[in-house]
Amino acid sequence: MSLSMYGVSVPVYTRQLNNLLNILDKAEAYAAERKFDVAVLLASRLAPDMLPLTKQVQIATDHVKGSLSRLAGKPVPSWADEEVTLDDLRARIRKALALLAEVTPAEIDGSEERPITLKLGGHDIVQPGQAYLLGIAMPNFYFHVTTAYAILRHNGVPVGKRDFIGG
Amino acid sequence: MSLSMYGVSVPVYTRQLNNLLNILDKAEAYAAERKFDVAVLLASRLAPDMLPLTKQVQIATDHVKGSLSRLAGKPVPSWADEEVTLDDLRARIRKALALLAEVTPAEIDGSEERPITLKLGGHDIVQPGQAYLLGIAMPNFYFHVTTAYAILRHNGVPVGKRDFIGG
Repeated sequence: MSLSMYGVSVPVYTRQLNNLLNILDKAEAYAAERKFDVAVLLASRLAPDMLPLTKQVQIATDHVKGSLSRLAGKPVPSWADEEVTLDDLRARIRKALALLAEVTPAEIDGSEERPITLKLGGHDIVQPGQAYLLGIAMPNFYFHVTTAYAILRHNGVPVGKRDFIGG
Repeated sequence: MSLSMYGVSVPVYTRQLNNLLNILDKAEAYAAERKFDVAVLLASRLAPDMLPLTKQVQIATDHVKGSLSRLAGKPVPSWADEEVTLDDLRARIRKALALLAEVTPAEIDGSEERPITLKLGGHDIVQPGQAYLLGIAMPNFYFHVTTAYAILRHNGVPVGKRDFIGG
């Protein structure tokens, strides 16, 4: 099967978000075992001027809904960043997974040259769908899911790269 | 232009490795300004049982040469993991960039279904080129370049996500 805009995005996002759910389960188990509030991990950062775990998950899912909606030529749904608990975060990831399950190849395939408009610093930046997906959405998505993993690993959660790559 | 195996890999690898070179320049400048040996950063890790920066760069470049060679049906070149200094690491990244500059679309386009054999735990795992690239090579590559960034950021190097995403 030859490559498609759907094939390079939806299965990748879906796999990584499912892996992230598994990694968060391990974070919860670790906090329970060590008897600390898992909220400590949700607020953890790798540097004082870097975003905490909760925000990493919010932004990763933003790139999922943002890229698939834009490529499909649909308005991007607005999700309030109100997650507080681990269950809230899981619900947000499941919301992104539900969106991924609804997207059809017909909606986004062929969007390689579709002009995508992003607001950056008050300016409209227009670029073709392929450049946007491969140069903005995917690297941002990978950046934030990897950073979420790294925050947990740095704080002692027993996860390994196999948890990140998944099966 | 519709998606191709070349288009989803070579420009992505190239962009991220150039960004990594810029990030390493900032690490060098930071070490000089704070008067410590940049080798401290090369040996830094996010967790005691996680690999240090040097190894993150080695593995990221391994996935570049590994995936492009396998998709092209060519033997994977063997690069000794002998890098010690920052200049050694830069040379390894430039070696990967030189390989990326030599790969032609004709060599890897159409490799979506080409059977790719990987040795994992002593067993041969065979999968189609597309599944290998999108499910093994790219997530591993992104994992290691993001972790390299995260190690530096965690240690105070003034880099931001813009350095990671690049222009």
